Amino acid sequence: MDTGRMKIEWVSRYMKLLNLLREKFSKEKPLAGLRIGISIHLEAKTAYLALTLSSLGAKVAITGSNPLSTQDDVAETLKNFGVEVHAKRTHDEKEYLKGLHKVLDYHPDLILDDGADLTVLAHTERKDALENLKGVSEETTTGVRRLRAHEKKGMLMVPVIAVNDSKMKFLLDNRYGTGQSTWDSIMRNTNVLIAGKNVVVSGYGWCGRGIALRAKGLGANVIVTEVDPVKAVEAVMDGFQVMRMDDASKIGDIFVTATGNRDVIRREHFLNMKDGAILANAGHFNVEVSMKELEELAVKKFHARSNVDGYVLPNGKTIFVIAEGRLVNLAAGDGHPIEIMDISFSLQVLSLLFLSKNHENLEKKVHLLPSEIDEEVARLKLKALDVEIDSLTEDQRRYMEGWQ
Amino acid sequence: MDTGRMKIEWVSRYMKLLNLLREKFSKEKPLAGLRIGISIHLEAKTAYLALTLSSLGAKVAITGSNPLSTQDDVAETLKNFGVEVHAKRTHDEKEYLKGLHKVLDYHPDLILDDGADLTVLAHTERKDALENLKGVSEETTTGVRRLRAHEKKGMLMVPVIAVNDSKMKFLLDNRYGTGQSTWDSIMRNTNVLIAGKNVVVSGYGWCGRGIALRAKGLGANVIVTEVDPVKAVEAVMDGFQVMRMDDASKIGDIFVTATGNRDVIRREHFLNMKDGAILANAGHFNVEVSMKELEELAVKKFHARSNVDGYVLPNGKTIFVIAEGRLVNLAAGDGHPIEIMDISFSLQVLSLLFLSKNHENLEKKVHLLPSEIDEEVARLKLKALDVEIDSLTEDQRRYMEGWQ
Amino acid sequence: MDTGRMKIEWVSRYMKLLNLLREKFSKEKPLAGLRIGISIHLEAKTAYLALTLSSLGAKVAITGSNPLSTQDDVAETLKNFGVEVHAKRTHDEKEYLKGLHKVLDYHPDLILDDGADLTVLAHTERKDALENLKGVSEETTTGVRRLRAHEKKGMLMVPVIAVNDSKMKFLLDNRYGTGQSTWDSIMRNTNVLIAGKNVVVSGYGWCGRGIALRAKGLGANVIVTEVDPVKAVEAVMDGFQVMRMDDASKIGDIFVTATGNRDVIRREHFLNMKDGAILANAGHFNVEVSMKELEELAVKKFHARSNVDGYVLPNGKTIFVIAEGRLVNLAAGDGHPIEIMDISFSLQVLSLLFLSKNHENLEKKVHLLPSEIDEEVARLKLKALDVEIDSLTEDQRRYMEGWQ
Amino acid sequence: MDTGRMKIEWVSRYMKLLNLLREKFSKEKPLAGLRIGISIHLEAKTAYLALTLSSLGAKVAITGSNPLSTQDDVAETLKNFGVEVHAKRTHDEKEYLKGLHKVLDYHPDLILDDGADLTVLAHTERKDALENLKGVSEETTTGVRRLRAHEKKGMLMVPVIAVNDSKMKFLLDNRYGTGQSTWDSIMRNTNVLIAGKNVVVSGYGWCGRGIALRAKGLGANVIVTEVDPVKAVEAVMDGFQVMRMDDASKIGDIFVTATGNRDVIRREHFLNMKDGAILANAGHFNVEVSMKELEELAVKKFHARSNVDGYVLPNGKTIFVIAEGRLVNLAAGDGHPIEIMDISFSLQVLSLLFLSKNHENLEKKVHLLPSEIDEEVARLKLKALDVEIDSLTEDQRRYMEGWQ
Repeated sequence: MDTGRMKIEWVSRYMKLLNLLREKFSKEKPLAGLRIGISIHLEAKTAYLALTLSSLGAKVAITGSNPLSTQDDVAETLKNFGVEVHAKRTHDEKEYLKGLHKVLDYHPDLILDDGADLTVLAHTERKDALENLKGVSEETTTGVRRLRAHEKKGMLMVPVIAVNDSKMKFLLDNRYGTGQSTWDSIMRNTNVLIAGKNVVVSGYGWCGRGIALRAKGLGANVIVTEVDPVKAVEAVMDGFQVMRMDDASKIGDIFVTATGNRDVIRREHFLNMKDGAILANAGHFNVEVSMKELEELAVKKFHARSNVDGYVLPNGKTIFVIAEGRLVNLAAGDGHPIEIMDISFSLQVLSLLFLSKNHENLEKKVHLLPSEIDEEVARLKLKALDVEIDSLTEDQRRYMEGWQ
Repeated sequence: MDTGRMKIEWVSRYMKLLNLLREKFSKEKPLAGLRIGISIHLEAKTAYLALTLSSLGAKVAITGSNPLSTQDDVAETLKNFGVEVHAKRTHDEKEYLKGLHKVLDYHPDLILDDGADLTVLAHTERKDALENLKGVSEETTTGVRRLRAHEKKGMLMVPVIAVNDSKMKFLLDNRYGTGQSTWDSIMRNTNVLIAGKNVVVSGYGWCGRGIALRAKGLGANVIVTEVDPVKAVEAVMDGFQVMRMDDASKIGDIFVTATGNRDVIRREHFLNMKDGAILANAGHFNVEVSMKELEELAVKKFHARSNVDGYVLPNGKTIFVIAEGRLVNLAAGDGHPIEIMDISFSLQVLSLLFLSKNHENLEKKVHLLPSEIDEEVARLKLKALDVEIDSLTEDQRRYMEGWQ
Repeated sequence: MDTGRMKIEWVSRYMKLLNLLREKFSKEKPLAGLRIGISIHLEAKTAYLALTLSSLGAKVAITGSNPLSTQDDVAETLKNFGVEVHAKRTHDEKEYLKGLHKVLDYHPDLILDDGADLTVLAHTERKDALENLKGVSEETTTGVRRLRAHEKKGMLMVPVIAVNDSKMKFLLDNRYGTGQSTWDSIMRNTNVLIAGKNVVVSGYGWCGRGIALRAKGLGANVIVTEVDPVKAVEAVMDGFQVMRMDDASKIGDIFVTATGNRDVIRREHFLNMKDGAILANAGHFNVEVSMKELEELAVKKFHARSNVDGYVLPNGKTIFVIAEGRLVNLAAGDGHPIEIMDISFSLQVLSLLFLSKNHENLEKKVHLLPSEIDEEVARLKLKALDVEIDSLTEDQRRYMEGWQ
Repeated sequence: MDTGRMKIEWVSRYMKLLNLLREKFSKEKPLAGLRIGISIHLEAKTAYLALTLSSLGAKVAITGSNPLSTQDDVAETLKNFGVEVHAKRTHDEKEYLKGLHKVLDYHPDLILDDGADLTVLAHTERKDALENLKGVSEETTTGVRRLRAHEKKGMLMVPVIAVNDSKMKFLLDNRYGTGQSTWDSIMRNTNVLIAGKNVVVSGYGWCGRGIALRAKGLGANVIVTEVDPVKAVEAVMDGFQVMRMDDASKIGDIFVTATGNRDVIRREHFLNMKDGAILANAGHFNVEVSMKELEELAVKKFHARSNVDGYVLPNGKTIFVIAEGRLVNLAAGDGHPIEIMDISFSLQVLSLLFLSKNHENLEKKVHLLPSEIDEEVARLKLKALDVEIDSLTEDQRRYMEGWQ
């Protein structure tokens, strides 16, 4: 059986917004003649995005944004549909880098990036790729942060759309998507009970609060660690315990990092932990749990369960890390739920359309998507949900604009 | 017994941030020589704010921001402490307006406003008051919206600090404050069970989501109405039913408005409602439930319970309105919980200090409080809560600023 | 204005089950010729129960079950409707006892008891009252426990219906009723924020879990203390922290007792508490917080707010007790929400009808209400809620009875 | 790699109660000389139970309680440890039956049953197996119901312990275990978003309320269907919508059955459903969703995803069923979380010990485990959780026993 195709067909049923956009645009083919280079976790949902871009007329080359997250059967099916694919689950860092180069060799007009690896490469080693490049649409918090740093240094050479900063992205994807998929992944990979556990969530940004909310919804006692005092107060007001990692590391049963920062859990914390503690990372890069320090510290490492490694510490305790500290919902799961990606990818499609039409008038900066596009996607979603909402009456509109 | 004094003493115990600021500044008296005019719901917590400003050296004149919300015993005590008070619970609209004028007669250097009535008056009928006025600190969403409209028309004559738009205000006050106090008020004034009720919340801004969250926490089945599609999608994702008021009005048991708009519940909706439906408004002005249309429609009106009026409709059904559609948590309750006001008022104190020092360098616009002040208040709150949080290591700080 | 009448009319609107029973039985008058003696917290809802029993033909004499919970205006109105009333808010213990005697002087055929004071009195000092007594219907956990102890010692002289042990009572009243009304009372009497507070709930029976659930719903971090290991495990699994009172007393901001036991919070715990800690009791008797030890310990006691007393401890800290440690939702609030009492009182009405018909065939024991009566009340409630449910098909009924 | 062994070692780390029992009893070997026959879902956790019984001295023969739930690698490992195993994932109904017979051929002294298939067989076709049989310990609601029906007809030939009816079983397993594992399974097998979905839960017993609670915790709008009016009222009070399946089937996105009954979702409901609706069963037997009617009705059936089949209906809509309507958490997941089974299996071990000592004095009835055993397991669990609880003082103990 063609499992790649089966997987793509499955997700296509629940990607109702992409389907509405295909319906609307497939005759017109507004992306005809454009090459789109994509770096993204390659699985069924992103495959359907690539196919949607094809159906709108684009030529697409794709590579992963993380070797472990590529699903090979899906990649194969995508090739059969005429997409250029440069990704494989077994790829190591070097081959991953090669995949990025291959996509740049394609000289894309537009880049759809997830973490900004492709765009950064085009701005450093592969400046040749900038020649044809008209714009970039970036998916993640991390990628946006990197490209903003670029912009600050005056190094950004194309307009970038920070899709991540659209309301329909950061309000939904990071909260409801990460919230669910992180716990889906932890549960399926450990089979431990969440109810009654002390769950330590590091970071109370949109991802962190999604993870904390769902942990609470699964019956856990949730502890939050933060460095931002405002977010810390919010976490307290949401009913969570807030403390330093020095203290939390002593009582946590499960730890989930979502800070966007490095070494959030490190040597001194590993040594505090209870026997059997489970660690997972929900941030983009595998630096939040300091795997380097853990490898150095451990007297023994063993494969404990599919996707889970055990580390025996000098104090005799064993702690477990899921997916080597990589993004847990992708490296050891199916990534975000379908409907979440459907929304994000609808923003991506509209962002690429927007770039294709407006790139000449856009400064070489990181831009937000116009709020009308946010609203358009929200209305598509309500339509897909079969939900009707109120409209302002004329009197109400005037009242909202008035001041007396 | 001096009940006003007892009330103020009670709240002073739980206003730990104001107490920390008094400790810090009461020797220095940084507001010495300044006249501050205040329009605010006059009860124990605002009284303690006024006394705190006095203890920092200011001369204070105060009036209500809504007649029904004045507590006369507290007003009396305040007078005894040397504050000029122009407010009484029995005041009608005319006397309320007179109170505002009296405060402007005082020619304040700074205004602390709640809904912008005082500031708007100074910009229209009472331009004489602008002469000495150095700046305004505004508390509410509604007030900020009014003053922004002023600014847009080029009519704003002093710098305004939108305290409402500080994170420590809108993230906490509107959500946790309104959330709790609205239900406290509805419960104490009706004694009906919330669990199992269909609760309709209009508006899913910060206030609305606080109200919805607490209704859910009390066991209700919550229905949200919205005009903004993005917020509507969020409400769905938070597990609420979303529908038009035309549909919600048929099944709701309790209705709470928090939109900032007028006529959200109107003639056609009243006629849809079930016998015994209960209506409350949590928005600043008493225009969200169209009381005018309800009065016209009703064949009989009667006093049903303290703070509750019954309206018999032509269809024979009776519906109930709490506090005549005025801000329910203030007009029929004790307003926000003490600790919430403590946070907001710490922002106010620091905002007035900021204005007193920087007014000459500030444009005649609506400004945000500098984020350092937000952080300062957050750190004070964590101190009061006895909560410690992490700090970035040097490596982490560099990582967050980097891009590679 | 006749405030007693207004209050009763208000509750009568939301007591839809009693209204359905009045409709059904008011012609038949099945309680005609019977004297019913009642000891119960006398306020609007119990008044409407008394009036409902009258409308079914009974003659009713009523006294309080707790002096502080009597509402005098309601008592007056009840007299005007022909009910014999022996209760006043200002009554002390001695006058309270006199009220009980007066009701027994009435020689009731049936007793409706709340805490079993009336029934215990009839079995001890007032054995004369047993002559005419045909049965007792008891409302509370505490009362049922006392009468079961009586039964064990062979001292029970009449059949008792433990209405408290009916599913529609203990599943609803103790959980949803106590849950809401306890927090309603604490919020209105203190105006403190619940979100972010450490709330300590003692006892994880039905009352305790209702209180804990609502505290969580209001944003608190909830800590449970228990003596029963099974309930303690449940509390952990529900996401609460569980610890000994020795530990909880050091970190709690608000304490609520619901154990049915005495001295749950005592000397050593008071001394552990933070300055400003707030204590409330949700159990039937005012023995859960050891007021005696607190009075002895305190160096000063003062009236801090309506219904709240402050106690200054030798360590300089002040702690506050609501309603002198009496049942907080009644002594400092309006008791259970109307709809909860409507359900309980429908059980009471049907229990008294059941006793009146079957007392001769019932052993002198504590009995449960037949489960059909539970079901009948549940169906009435669904009718009042306008909720329809499924019925078993014939095949399904057979399947449930089969074993193969 | 020996994956079976790896799986068993993983679960053994989190089965702390079984480990505490092994510690306590492994020297004494209290089950020495006894043959135990087991029918149970054969995977790592049950394997560790079997090994625990071996370590207490018993000889063990085991078969599945459901073909699809057997994990072959675990079965192999078990054989290597000397357990007699008669189960294979590929077994059909006939071979499953043969497995049961093989276990009875072993002439067990004690049976540990899960659904009562083994015990019913011994009471019907295989009465020879009754000769040596001293008692049965039954795990599930369904099994207990079947054996009670047996008892009623006077057909029960051995004492049975209804482990399912122990508090530490039904309060935890059915609620927290089924609650988590059902959603774990649905999420991993579909990758759809739960937040914002209309989730229909059929049955509001302990399983159903666990499923509903977790669905709410994952952000769903939960609809409950019930036939019992008392449970229906509870569901309303818990904030859920309650309606008939006729109505729910029109709006549900995901359906989960947990009634213990048959044909809860049937022909007329399938035809009401939305395109893309997903069905799962969390009840013991695969009869709750009428697969027979669905197979008859569908114009096409196809394999849609691992463990998911699609059915195209005559109306053109497609609906999906997970795991062919079998117990979803076992047939398409890893079953209950480890810690839940650890508790249930500790009860089982203690139940078998209790039977081995007391079988001669026990009537041939369905018995509850003595409540001391419940308490013992609860105390073990608190020890494993490192949670301390209060004890009654002498005064408190006397008070609880008193009545005055």
